[in-house]
Amino acid sequence: MTGHLIGVGVGPGDPDLLTLKAIDALRHADVVAYFAKAGNASNARTIVAAHLNGAQELPLLYPVTTEIPKEDVAYRDAITAFYDASAATVAKHLDADRTVAVLSEGDPLFYGSYMHLHVRLSPRYPAEVIAGVTGMSGCWSSIGIPMTQGDDVFTVLPGTLPEYELERRLADANAAVVMKIGRHLAKVRRALDRAGRLDRAIYVERGTMANASVMKLTDKLDGCAPYFAIVLVPGWEQRP
Amino acid sequence: MTGHLIGVGVGPGDPDLLTLKAIDALRHADVVAYFAKAGNASNARTIVAAHLNGAQELPLLYPVTTEIPKEDVAYRDAITAFYDASAATVAKHLDADRTVAVLSEGDPLFYGSYMHLHVRLSPRYPAEVIAGVTGMSGCWSSIGIPMTQGDDVFTVLPGTLPEYELERRLADANAAVVMKIGRHLAKVRRALDRAGRLDRAIYVERGTMANASVMKLTDKLDGCAPYFAIVLVPGWEQRP
Repeated sequence: MTGHLIGVGVGPGDPDLLTLKAIDALRHADVVAYFAKAGNASNARTIVAAHLNGAQELPLLYPVTTEIPKEDVAYRDAITAFYDASAATVAKHLDADRTVAVLSEGDPLFYGSYMHLHVRLSPRYPAEVIAGVTGMSGCWSSIGIPMTQGDDVFTVLPGTLPEYELERRLADANAAVVMKIGRHLAKVRRALDRAGRLDRAIYVERGTMANASVMKLTDKLDGCAPYFAIVLVPGWEQRP
Repeated sequence: MTGHLIGVGVGPGDPDLLTLKAIDALRHADVVAYFAKAGNASNARTIVAAHLNGAQELPLLYPVTTEIPKEDVAYRDAITAFYDASAATVAKHLDADRTVAVLSEGDPLFYGSYMHLHVRLSPRYPAEVIAGVTGMSGCWSSIGIPMTQGDDVFTVLPGTLPEYELERRLADANAAVVMKIGRHLAKVRRALDRAGRLDRAIYVERGTMANASVMKLTDKLDGCAPYFAIVLVPGWEQRP
């Protein structure tokens, strides 16, 4: 006998964007696990707080986040060891026949940390993934911007790409989302300008939160942005 | 006084992937509208059936779907007139102070028909959009395939693109979804092969339904596929 592993998509931030399936999984879980930075509250846990029914909580605390550059081999080693140890901790609960729900902001298999547990544990334990509303869907819905239609090509790009790569790819898609803006804001703006897409670009900070900040990217005058800010470039340019 | 227009994302098919917000909107709606092909049941309505509380239903029936090629000016004229007429019908309800919930499979602003009403009506009436779980998230979650991670570039492509465009774009993305497979299956397969991505491609039919069909694209031997079948090309090739 072993327990079940469940990756639970908790959506973009608004607790009302939780699915029935996610809530049901939280109700029946023996253990609720979530990734967080040490000393910080987990956003995912905040989203589901009203639906926790006394299950054991298992915070999985990152040993590093931005202290070491991601390209550094020390970062890679530290983060791999952390995911290995997290999987081993979760496995102990599964071996004891406990169902472990792992919270994942947005959609678990779309850029979610849950995937690091899934690839380590799903070959050995029954695993289920509950899809969630992505952060980007939450953003464009909250501001009512039609994103893609018909035969639009849609692309998601990390702001970490080199400027010429951003420019080339932004010029080549009908609609795009640039994620992880942070310190890449000025570069992303230049790339959009050179791609001829700056006029359509919308800057979104804390997308579906009460204190969201939304503006045309051309109106965002400074060079600073939080890591999780995103830029939307809506498609559907030939509307019937 | 005017009513509210609400675009309600109902998710990929499993009624348990409805959000609390969608269910609440359905409970309070005076009118529930949905697009469908004449003579066919609306998938979106089937998904929400258990949550309809006697609101007036407003089916919006497409005058044409595949009878006329999409490139044909007659198709464009017919479909534009249909969306104009549908918006006028919904506007009458809004003018009478009724809240109209328009069902949208997946996420309303991501390739959803609701957008045709939104662009016509949101300048004149209060409009709200409730994000939903997309069809593609439903597909990759139901089969537990990690799709994108870290700095992956992710692209959504319509199967209608020319073969050389599909090949070029598939070779240029870390992860991809090809939608609207239908009669384009053989072309999509050739493009994936030439892009060196065929081995990773997964074919999904009726993604989140009980009768889903999932296989490696290399195991899909015939040339036929339903219009709404999709192909997933997972990214995250350098796992730590």
